[in-house]
Amino acid sequence: MDDRKALIALNDELSADEDPILLPREAGQASKAVQDFGRYQSEEPSTSAAAGRVAPHISGNNHFLDDDQPPLLGDNSLPPNVPINGSAGSSNRNINSSEPIFHLRSRTAAASTPNYESLDYEVCENTLFQDEQRKRLTERFSLRKDIIRWIIFIQIGIITALIACTIDIIIEELSERKYTFLYNSVKKNVPLSDAADGSDLLIPYLYWLLFSILPVAFGAAMVTYIEPITAGSGIPQVKSYLNGVKIPRIVRIKTLAVKAIGVITSVVGGLAGGKEGPMIHAGAVVAAGISQGKSTTFVKDFRIFKAFRDDHEKRDFVLGGGAAGVSAAFGAPIGGMLFSLEEAASFWNQNLIWRTLVASIISVFTLNIVLSAYHGLNDFTFTGLFNLGKFDTPLKFDYFELPIFMLLGVTGGLLGAAWNSLNTKINKFRKRFIPWKIGKVIEAVVVAMMGVTLACLMIYFINDCRPLGNDPTNNPVQLFCEDNEYNAVAALWFQTPEATVRSLFHDPPGSHKILTLALFTVVYYVLSCATFGLNVSLGVFIPTALVGAAWGRLLAMLTYYAFPQAEFLHPGKYALIGAAANLGGVLRMTISLSVILMETTGVETSFFFPLIIALISAKWVGDYFNEGIYDTQIQVNHVPMLTWEPLPQYKGLTAREILSSPVVCIKLRDSAHYIYQMLKKCDHNGFPVVDDVSGDRRSEGRVCGIILRSQLIVILLKSLYVENKRFWLPETSIQTFRDVYPRYPSIKSVRKLDNKINYTVDLSMFMNPSPIRVNPHDSVPRIFQIFRALGLRHLLVINNENRIAGIITRRDFIYK
Amino acid sequence: MDDRKALIALNDELSADEDPILLPREAGQASKAVQDFGRYQSEEPSTSAAAGRVAPHISGNNHFLDDDQPPLLGDNSLPPNVPINGSAGSSNRNINSSEPIFHLRSRTAAASTPNYESLDYEVCENTLFQDEQRKRLTERFSLRKDIIRWIIFIQIGIITALIACTIDIIIEELSERKYTFLYNSVKKNVPLSDAADGSDLLIPYLYWLLFSILPVAFGAAMVTYIEPITAGSGIPQVKSYLNGVKIPRIVRIKTLAVKAIGVITSVVGGLAGGKEGPMIHAGAVVAAGISQGKSTTFVKDFRIFKAFRDDHEKRDFVLGGGAAGVSAAFGAPIGGMLFSLEEAASFWNQNLIWRTLVASIISVFTLNIVLSAYHGLNDFTFTGLFNLGKFDTPLKFDYFELPIFMLLGVTGGLLGAAWNSLNTKINKFRKRFIPWKIGKVIEAVVVAMMGVTLACLMIYFINDCRPLGNDPTNNPVQLFCEDNEYNAVAALWFQTPEATVRSLFHDPPGSHKILTLALFTVVYYVLSCATFGLNVSLGVFIPTALVGAAWGRLLAMLTYYAFPQAEFLHPGKYALIGAAANLGGVLRMTISLSVILMETTGVETSFFFPLIIALISAKWVGDYFNEGIYDTQIQVNHVPMLTWEPLPQYKGLTAREILSSPVVCIKLRDSAHYIYQMLKKCDHNGFPVVDDVSGDRRSEGRVCGIILRSQLIVILLKSLYVENKRFWLPETSIQTFRDVYPRYPSIKSVRKLDNKINYTVDLSMFMNPSPIRVNPHDSVPRIFQIFRALGLRHLLVINNENRIAGIITRRDFIYK
Repeated sequence: MDDRKALIALNDELSADEDPILLPREAGQASKAVQDFGRYQSEEPSTSAAAGRVAPHISGNNHFLDDDQPPLLGDNSLPPNVPINGSAGSSNRNINSSEPIFHLRSRTAAASTPNYESLDYEVCENTLFQDEQRKRLTERFSLRKDIIRWIIFIQIGIITALIACTIDIIIEELSERKYTFLYNSVKKNVPLSDAADGSDLLIPYLYWLLFSILPVAFGAAMVTYIEPITAGSGIPQVKSYLNGVKIPRIVRIKTLAVKAIGVITSVVGGLAGGKEGPMIHAGAVVAAGISQGKSTTFVKDFRIFKAFRDDHEKRDFVLGGGAAGVSAAFGAPIGGMLFSLEEAASFWNQNLIWRTLVASIISVFTLNIVLSAYHGLNDFTFTGLFNLGKFDTPLKFDYFELPIFMLLGVTGGLLGAAWNSLNTKINKFRKRFIPWKIGKVIEAVVVAMMGVTLACLMIYFINDCRPLGNDPTNNPVQLFCEDNEYNAVAALWFQTPEATVRSLFHDPPGSHKILTLALFTVVYYVLSCATFGLNVSLGVFIPTALVGAAWGRLLAMLTYYAFPQAEFLHPGKYALIGAAANLGGVLRMTISLSVILMETTGVETSFFFPLIIALISAKWVGDYFNEGIYDTQIQVNHVPMLTWEPLPQYKGLTAREILSSPVVCIKLRDSAHYIYQMLKKCDHNGFPVVDDVSGDRRSEGRVCGIILRSQLIVILLKSLYVENKRFWLPETSIQTFRDVYPRYPSIKSVRKLDNKINYTVDLSMFMNPSPIRVNPHDSVPRIFQIFRALGLRHLLVINNENRIAGIITRRDFIYK
Repeated sequence: MDDRKALIALNDELSADEDPILLPREAGQASKAVQDFGRYQSEEPSTSAAAGRVAPHISGNNHFLDDDQPPLLGDNSLPPNVPINGSAGSSNRNINSSEPIFHLRSRTAAASTPNYESLDYEVCENTLFQDEQRKRLTERFSLRKDIIRWIIFIQIGIITALIACTIDIIIEELSERKYTFLYNSVKKNVPLSDAADGSDLLIPYLYWLLFSILPVAFGAAMVTYIEPITAGSGIPQVKSYLNGVKIPRIVRIKTLAVKAIGVITSVVGGLAGGKEGPMIHAGAVVAAGISQGKSTTFVKDFRIFKAFRDDHEKRDFVLGGGAAGVSAAFGAPIGGMLFSLEEAASFWNQNLIWRTLVASIISVFTLNIVLSAYHGLNDFTFTGLFNLGKFDTPLKFDYFELPIFMLLGVTGGLLGAAWNSLNTKINKFRKRFIPWKIGKVIEAVVVAMMGVTLACLMIYFINDCRPLGNDPTNNPVQLFCEDNEYNAVAALWFQTPEATVRSLFHDPPGSHKILTLALFTVVYYVLSCATFGLNVSLGVFIPTALVGAAWGRLLAMLTYYAFPQAEFLHPGKYALIGAAANLGGVLRMTISLSVILMETTGVETSFFFPLIIALISAKWVGDYFNEGIYDTQIQVNHVPMLTWEPLPQYKGLTAREILSSPVVCIKLRDSAHYIYQMLKKCDHNGFPVVDDVSGDRRSEGRVCGIILRSQLIVILLKSLYVENKRFWLPETSIQTFRDVYPRYPSIKSVRKLDNKINYTVDLSMFMNPSPIRVNPHDSVPRIFQIFRALGLRHLLVINNENRIAGIITRRDFIYK
């Protein structure tokens, strides 16, 4: 038959098409798609129809179809990879320019932008869902669901803590061995305290290089080749996820494994990073995994927690997991919960806070027990974790110090803003000039080598010897010093960054030379800036705190040098304030950071005041220049994250000006063939369902619902047609759709319709019958508020007669 | 003319009508209205029309009108005080039953329920608003608005702190004088340490009574006669306000004045209450006042901050004010902010947290400076406020104590739940049997006398003498004790409750007898229960903490008595845990309470863990029985507060089942006369604007917007008619409407239309053109989510053709 052949031809033609579940793709592939698109345009003459709002379409294919079939590809258009966009013409122009094209929704145009999709935070209340709800409306069921939810949160706390412990202990053990080995090597090779000749340092230097390169190369290779999403701290990704952006593979078990190994190797390798960010990500993965009661990776369904299998429920668990992760990373339960609220959460409610807090508490408690047992503490006294070291003498301050704290805050804000800007530039450079995978691994190794080399140079050239006895370092290296002295420069470098923060907070006054600390600050500032953005799993918290602690201490030393009578200049106190200020300048958080710093150092609650003064000043100053590092990363990666307020340039617009049209619609009863073809050809994820359609002018119908791509695919896969209703109706429920969550099959997995080409789909029981609708003249701030508050994925713009005028998605608020 | 006379008759008939700005009314008035309604029903035959969905109406009046006028009161109905309700028949039945009728929206039926209205948290984006927005879209304007917002928040912090200081200092001074006087009186009248005869105590007792009765009577009278809304702690009211319920007179300056005096008199009078709750209310009033830049009470408009004059902006300031209030009350900035978030806020966003925190910090800082200056501290060392006294030795705990803390938590949960339930019963009793104002004052006096008498009896009958020297009380009364001893019972009673909490936390072990503390616990438990709900301004925090501290310390003493080798039983520590547990049991908060307790006692951050264990256990146990005291109060007062989740009994329903219909609609161009009449006769606050109306069948029109009662009244007041458009159009802007905010005039202030009876109103530029609309088959959980997340006041239910099916307001989610 003619149309069969044509269909095959059409399919071949579209075979360049990829899996419609969109993943970030390489630039090369995308530009091929752009070329395809161009070719397509020239081959198929586009005709304009229906009030001139329809994009180029393939109505020329009409003759492929039987006469008794309604014209499949009529005016209502199946734009072949055409952006749903009011200005298809102008987008055509853009495609050939070298500028990144952000305002196009279709992946064909996404030359440099990975095409992130939204999560379905909106619950689709179709007939099937309501049927289930009615069945489960008993008191008992909802109580059971509540109890299970609590159990899951408790499990999240425990398992996150166990993972955190494991990472902690492995890092500690390996670092200990590495630095002990280096210490011994130095001892053996630099025997004389007055050896002015540096050649003896060569062997330890080479060992040091080796112990840095090996783990870093291994970690970077794992991240690059196995799971690139694990690069960085993971906080921006978790934040985007909680905002409703689908970050592919973000919450998989494989991701967790790579992240854990990646963070161990990088910290042991001596890169300027911490384990805190990755812990949050780990907590999020644990939460997403446990709450679903199944693992898609291991193809194992435990048949539990089925009621929690949707994006909405999962989101809340992931928030709890993130909080448990921070809590475990810092040993700070309130801090962890506040961190989740302040930085990560986009949606919030009282019960959620409450559950999140419990998960955090459980997490810290578990961590404390395990670590206590590991360190062999026999008395069961809870000491808190204080992983930045406890200040034993209470920190006091005077009123006249407040302006100083404020000045430190301003300094932190300036340095932080500069760091963010520099880091962004480095990462842009990196993205442009190091596209190859092996290059990314080599780059990480080079940065690691640079760190070791700079450290060695500092140790070699600076003569900073201190008497042994009151330095808390484990391996006081004698290196070029007299007997009974140790090298204070080496002490800074011969340990993990976290341990160095501890040293700067707690070392007694006079432990370092001013020159040492000044050089250390500069070197570490640059190093940390070069490190964040490498393809390794590392957080930014510890290096930022370290830089801050270094310059905080340095400033106190300088001032004390100038005014030796200033008794209040406790260097540890100023190191703490400096750390807070620098953190505030880079991360732009306030409450959670101050609470975390308080909880991890055990300072008195009254010291909250100086901390927050420094943080607030830093945030204010920093915000004047740019955004926090996490938000910057999100922007640089073109993640369509919805901020709390609409972007300023959108404030004067109306829905009409940002909507995308024409919209591909489906009739309430439509042919399976049309749906199949449409899904093959356009990659949108939501289709308005219309009624009251004259002929095939679907886009002029009256809106009666919306249906998701994933639902349509399930309908086709399971052959839920009107004609064979008697077979599937009794056993079809919302569970049929939930079973394929979260990895929906692609349209390619639907075999050709062959014998079902004339079948009909009745969407009335599958569609979401009550999508949120707005008017074209509604202002963007208003629809933004609706979109964000309800966590929508698609917002329909309708005219007064309830006919579709356009559709608005997340991207339209950002890239238009 | 005929219709003129009829109109007058009609007006007379409706003259029983009250100010449509609804205030809580006395039961008597309301039942009169119910009778009126009943009379009306019998006089006017009701006919059913338009698909049987129209309530009884007064179509019988049709003949009053001219022929050339469209039938004013046609099928579209002007229900005269008729509830907008689908089941008018059934409501008729209810009216004569003695049950309180919660499911009726109209005030006529509100026999015992004050008819709370909603606030307009939704911004009405009409043409005027958009015009203004366009003008003000400059970068400069929005920066300026941001800066002004910050200035307001800082001012809120400062002024709230100053008020808090004033209250603090006055209470302290007066209490000091009162108790010193009593102390001297005791000293004079009970000269012998072994005076077994109690007659000598009579004079101090009478003095004590006098010093209790006078202030309490004064305070209660002020609250009762001047501003009844100031009774209680104010937290439930502020919480309701932030949820979107209009609590009349809640944020007025008069309220603040009465509240301040009320709380001073009650605390000085010795009632079992604290000043903390009222401080939150005070902060809220300050915030609302400052942010508006005008005082309606003093008829003074400063012509500043005009851009913040709407419910939405005001809400955010009030949240900041509440936080500043808590912070000032406890000297706990993080605690204050968390309290606002956990207990008060219904809406939340990141920027808001950030501003709220700054307000809290500023508030604590101001308070600290002023109080330091007042107490004459010369060294400018910031010490924190610690108004529950600083624990000087760090509190430690062992793992095996955790189950004990948990048990204390469970005890707190049980006692708290019992307290809540008892208090609710007492208040119900009170409401029923003490309706008269003078009765309320007398009741407060009686409770005050009861407190003094019980205290005296305890002092008289219990012989608990302790050696002088290590008790921190100011006035150690010798009373029946040997020389060099003081009476430990008197020490508990001869100070403000706050000071007693301090004593229980910090008194050295062995300061009290077991019997003393046991009796004190019981007496104070009952007293505080009887006090909360009196017509006085008092918070519940301090008495609750006091009861908890008492039984916590008591339990530690009992256990120590049983196992004298248990060294860990530091009574102060257990008093603190007991206070936390009892607070958790009564208030059901966790995070903020633990942080507040930490901040006010200066314990180490590691002690957060036991606190939160106790609080969580208490909350879990308590939640099994009933709700927290604030939520209970809100429920008892029938405040239509929207919880975080829909009520369980609503979960299976759809919009159709809870909507109110028929709905009184207005045509896009409607006659001034119709609008005037309608406003006179029905007291709804929002009216759908319809289009495409055939004749007068308004309720069958197509929805094109919604307009508020207040807007319509302004239109009528300012004569914004189509016919005289050329006069008002140039000078009418959104400011015209904003000028009358927040006390909108009533329809009575519009003089009769007389010569403008034929004029027309065109609503297109005034109405909100994009109300949120849902379908009748949408589930209640879904529409609840929309309603709550967007802070709506009216939600229109439309059918597929965009014609009105009903309207849903706050009340429909609670009382239906």
